[in-house]
Amino acid sequence: MSTLNGLVCFTNCLLPQEDGGLIEKDLWIDEHHGVILDSQLTFFARRERPDRIIDLGGNILSPGLIDIQINGAYGFDFSVYDGDDEAYKQGMKSVAEKIVETGVTSLVPTIITQEKSLYPKILNLLHPFSTPTSATLLGWHAEGPFIDMAKRGAHAPPFLLSAPDGFQSFESAYGAHNLVDSEDWMMSSDGQCGVRIVTGAPEIKGVMGALNELTKRGIVFSIGHSIASSDVATAAVVQGARLITHLFNAMPLLHHRDPSIIGLLGASPHLSAPVAVDTFPPPISPLAASAMSGVSSEAFDYQSSPGTPAHKGVLSRVGSRSELHLEKGQIADMTFDRPFYDIIVDGIHSHPNSVRLAYSAFPDGCILITDAMKILDPNLRDGVHEWRDGKRFVKEGDKLYLEGTTTLAGSVVTLDKCVRNFSRFTGCSLGEAIKCATFNPAKCLGIENRKGTLRPGADADLVVLDRQGNPVSTWVKGKQVWGVGAD
Amino acid sequence: MSTLNGLVCFTNCLLPQEDGGLIEKDLWIDEHHGVILDSQLTFFARRERPDRIIDLGGNILSPGLIDIQINGAYGFDFSVYDGDDEAYKQGMKSVAEKIVETGVTSLVPTIITQEKSLYPKILNLLHPFSTPTSATLLGWHAEGPFIDMAKRGAHAPPFLLSAPDGFQSFESAYGAHNLVDSEDWMMSSDGQCGVRIVTGAPEIKGVMGALNELTKRGIVFSIGHSIASSDVATAAVVQGARLITHLFNAMPLLHHRDPSIIGLLGASPHLSAPVAVDTFPPPISPLAASAMSGVSSEAFDYQSSPGTPAHKGVLSRVGSRSELHLEKGQIADMTFDRPFYDIIVDGIHSHPNSVRLAYSAFPDGCILITDAMKILDPNLRDGVHEWRDGKRFVKEGDKLYLEGTTTLAGSVVTLDKCVRNFSRFTGCSLGEAIKCATFNPAKCLGIENRKGTLRPGADADLVVLDRQGNPVSTWVKGKQVWGVGAD
Repeated sequence: MSTLNGLVCFTNCLLPQEDGGLIEKDLWIDEHHGVILDSQLTFFARRERPDRIIDLGGNILSPGLIDIQINGAYGFDFSVYDGDDEAYKQGMKSVAEKIVETGVTSLVPTIITQEKSLYPKILNLLHPFSTPTSATLLGWHAEGPFIDMAKRGAHAPPFLLSAPDGFQSFESAYGAHNLVDSEDWMMSSDGQCGVRIVTGAPEIKGVMGALNELTKRGIVFSIGHSIASSDVATAAVVQGARLITHLFNAMPLLHHRDPSIIGLLGASPHLSAPVAVDTFPPPISPLAASAMSGVSSEAFDYQSSPGTPAHKGVLSRVGSRSELHLEKGQIADMTFDRPFYDIIVDGIHSHPNSVRLAYSAFPDGCILITDAMKILDPNLRDGVHEWRDGKRFVKEGDKLYLEGTTTLAGSVVTLDKCVRNFSRFTGCSLGEAIKCATFNPAKCLGIENRKGTLRPGADADLVVLDRQGNPVSTWVKGKQVWGVGAD
Repeated sequence: MSTLNGLVCFTNCLLPQEDGGLIEKDLWIDEHHGVILDSQLTFFARRERPDRIIDLGGNILSPGLIDIQINGAYGFDFSVYDGDDEAYKQGMKSVAEKIVETGVTSLVPTIITQEKSLYPKILNLLHPFSTPTSATLLGWHAEGPFIDMAKRGAHAPPFLLSAPDGFQSFESAYGAHNLVDSEDWMMSSDGQCGVRIVTGAPEIKGVMGALNELTKRGIVFSIGHSIASSDVATAAVVQGARLITHLFNAMPLLHHRDPSIIGLLGASPHLSAPVAVDTFPPPISPLAASAMSGVSSEAFDYQSSPGTPAHKGVLSRVGSRSELHLEKGQIADMTFDRPFYDIIVDGIHSHPNSVRLAYSAFPDGCILITDAMKILDPNLRDGVHEWRDGKRFVKEGDKLYLEGTTTLAGSVVTLDKCVRNFSRFTGCSLGEAIKCATFNPAKCLGIENRKGTLRPGADADLVVLDRQGNPVSTWVKGKQVWGVGAD
């Protein structure tokens, strides 16, 4: 159906709000420009009438879902590059075009730790891009190589790195031009801004001192694959870390006396200051004194908030424990906001009770991710599937394990199912669950004016969900790109 | 000051509400009968005037605080009985009279695991009692002996027991007359109802099957010193367990895939059913199959809610892991309410972030306890103090450790300080923190019509707190028993 003025009005639908509510209201979009309109302004002030009215039959009209951690899908693995640029680009495009059937309209492909020389090759292949019928790839999520050996998970030990030169080590690993700031990175097409999220361990040498510079460039530093103590994790947040990668997985368990990274969900701004010590450099600490050898210490500059004077910090490490000392100074004006955290809600990676505990502690920080493997494909049947190196997967519903073992081999859950699971596990409304897969990830990335929202001026990336949360149709920049029964 | 009609009106004060609010309102009490009055009824309907009006200068008039776990205070240890009944009773009385300076007007003295023959001797010495100037002792909290060796803490290994005869084993340990139900146990003076709370491990042989009977008698079963898996802990709650003892301490860490006892704070009623298995008795389970030896299994009857038919359950254990199988049946009508949990908020036993995480997950279940050692005494100076067996404590503020070590030796924090800490750690209001030391423990014990409340008809046990939460005066049954500067 062609339209003259391009105005489309969705009616008889529920719109998810940024506070998690669902309200009955029309939504107007401009399909020529692919943006959401201010319906009041359009109808009353400009006296325009829609060329097309779409009755959604009481369904939910949500912003398109955003997956900020996904390793692959439909047989393509973002972390596998065999030298053929065109094949790789084709793989990315294929994922972007197919994944809309799961309600996802934006994603941040993840590459796990690579051999160092491969980073620039892969990272150069992705700048934010989309086709008229695909989801938008928003840039890379670089998970590693600056992670902790003790929590490496499936990352290859020989490729893990420390960052002895601070931010320069990050530039050297990912390529300096992939870490450049630009005014609107989502519009970038000049080879800049490849990396949008870096998952790393703040206790690794040189990482803490690099956080300020990463953050200044609008890159999200996410704490993950880490054994950071409460003090170290808190300090990382003060330095700019604003996300926790797959909460619960690849980090210390919640210990009541040192709740570490998970404990950040319960951190209070006014209690996060006392990490500073009276005497600096610190005297021999109990931790260091208790170790006969193997103590490593690292000094770095520490800013309590942007624009304030830098203080000295020392991070010490003995085996699997770490300890932080900061110079006492203008710590009082420290800025501390609890970080976002992303979580795989497939009912397997975390128990429903754990999910509810986390969400209760900090609802506004919750981000749903799939962390999916290349095997992700809602149409794939249960059974045995080929992986790589002659190994095979067994898929049993959303459970994926290596053939002949009980070892979990990653996730195959779709993001729309995570939304439904999440509502069921936590008892939150579907609107609140949707928020965790739309507005929250957009806000974490700093793009909540464009994605994950129904604000006027935002991209008309939409998914229609039935009242149980199942995708009915998906829209990208104002055009329908998928619908039930379309494939 | 003597009064004729005994009516006292507190004015210019804030009253904590059962929802955690603080509102400005007068409170009337009858000091002759020691109860709180309905001020509307008294003033308007009965047209009475108070003989005495007390201006509290804007302070908080709270129900007296309730400590449901306290090992001793002022040099007296509830768990140490040397054969002299009178000396022991004098010790109890002394604690009850002195502790009012901390705002506590009711307490449940705790006895930790004892040599079996000592239980009846000690337990017979305490029935709910108070003097006109003391706090009320509400009966015993029996912590042990049915606890798990793997999480025994300071409990003596040779004295730990299993319960091969179910409830009869409990009767045999504590004495049958100490476990008897009575219509109003708080009025008991006939030698009944010694035990009000039992802390035990539901995975210990015979314990799960005894919970129904314990619960029927109005005794609170509290999960503690336990390694119960999520399934086992959930089943225990369905069977009647309604409390968790010193959350975080002496239990497994929160594991995301089996969040165990701590995970109960995030449990949803509608998700707690699937512990039942299709085939019963269960086939060889992965847990049992993975063990070469040392598998112990125990069958018990399992009721999904009171009055429903019993089903069969099997609890298996291999080393430190446990597993539960239930017969599938009328599990659908299962009743499940999240249990209360008590927590030591001294800033030492649990990190502030952990405390906030727990409270966020389930505010209405939170109970503040001191779990204090006999050294508790707000007037005691820091330094070295004698303990027993020639050992000595070092007290450093609220930190207590064995001389020459860094081993924590228990708690010395007062309950009023826990209230202040809790408000600071969690960001909750003082009214909400007060609720966790008054209404919540009373509700857990089932005495919220009498204690921990300002409802008309309740005992006039009160504490006046300044706006920072410091005790100013304490009242028991309508009479002031302590005030700042009084000692």
